[in-house]
Amino acid sequence: MDTYRIIEVKESVFADNDADAEKLRQELKERGTYLINLMSSPGSGKTTTLTRLIEELHDEVRIGIMEADIDSDVDADTISRTGVKVIQLHTGGMCHLDADMTRQGIRELGDAELDLVVLENVGNLVCPAEFDTGAALNVMILSVPEGHDKPLKYPLIFQRCNAMIINKLDVLPYFDFDMALVEQYARKRNPDIKIFPISAKTSEGVAELADWLKDQIKNWHEI
Amino acid sequence: MDTYRIIEVKESVFADNDADAEKLRQELKERGTYLINLMSSPGSGKTTTLTRLIEELHDEVRIGIMEADIDSDVDADTISRTGVKVIQLHTGGMCHLDADMTRQGIRELGDAELDLVVLENVGNLVCPAEFDTGAALNVMILSVPEGHDKPLKYPLIFQRCNAMIINKLDVLPYFDFDMALVEQYARKRNPDIKIFPISAKTSEGVAELADWLKDQIKNWHEI
Repeated sequence: MDTYRIIEVKESVFADNDADAEKLRQELKERGTYLINLMSSPGSGKTTTLTRLIEELHDEVRIGIMEADIDSDVDADTISRTGVKVIQLHTGGMCHLDADMTRQGIRELGDAELDLVVLENVGNLVCPAEFDTGAALNVMILSVPEGHDKPLKYPLIFQRCNAMIINKLDVLPYFDFDMALVEQYARKRNPDIKIFPISAKTSEGVAELADWLKDQIKNWHEI
Repeated sequence: MDTYRIIEVKESVFADNDADAEKLRQELKERGTYLINLMSSPGSGKTTTLTRLIEELHDEVRIGIMEADIDSDVDADTISRTGVKVIQLHTGGMCHLDADMTRQGIRELGDAELDLVVLENVGNLVCPAEFDTGAALNVMILSVPEGHDKPLKYPLIFQRCNAMIINKLDVLPYFDFDMALVEQYARKRNPDIKIFPISAKTSEGVAELADWLKDQIKNWHEI
């Protein structure tokens, strides 16, 4: 038996996504659910990173995960093995999620009291950055094989994100990836961006990332 | 002195992109220019692959390259070192190119008689697949670090492409990438897709890809 459902989210009818996102942010604040919007290119390791973070966080925080994809349920299947609540969202071909699509997902996660919901957005460095999902925190992953020049080519996502996770540190010896340059380019787009080099495969750096996220969640719940 | 120009392409005014793409395809046929639309995720190695292909093809074919990005000119700079004609297209934040944007680029490449023009599309597995650029051939790159499950998650680009290049074979030992599975998944989306495993870094497999492209170009010019 499947331990997760697949939801076909409908395109939003709201003309003003920014206003709708602000409304969703308020609703989530009232119910005490911290929402993280996790973005990246296809194949940069969003699901593996989430799996590691769930291991670090699930003793202290009640977690729900929304996996957004155009098709397939491979990511929801992977996350369901961690034991946390997960649903697969299908976007009907769309390249991003907006606030109303995010709200449809949260509704389908149900009435369980969740301290933290993570939306794993569609793999895409362009469109997801253009739509506020109502999240309290925007986080992106850039993986080593993608190259250190990405902040030069895709400015908006680096501007919009509170944190950049640099994943796949374990393969750093096999790629021409310059850690100092990527930090310089990312900070040119966003001087305040937090940077976490990790390997989701070996768990290197994951504990530091999890500690920072715990602080963000705790501070938000206290405000 | 820069050896290439940067063009800010304007959003198309044509409501019917499919009809406009068909028109551009006819115009290109008349002037004898074969257009390839090269698509992939960010960082899968489009520019490095192009550099290798130019080395294999430039003795026999007059080549022009259009590098499309939201920002930066790093790719046009790289290609300019091969000596072929290149321009950098900036999309003004847009996630794809349509036929009219492609036409603006070809116009800026000038009146030189070119047998082959390659459009390196914006790095994105979703949106570029939705817009016919007027190309005679659609080619995508999937790189090993992205994982073999991508045809399950991003169906349209696999359906639309005549060929899939599997790049970064040199790092295959360091990733859980199943070559048999990716072929199976890709052919599920598109039974006729041609598959070329290569390493643009070591040039493994590039000659076979170049030979196939030469045949495509030759056959098209003869029809």
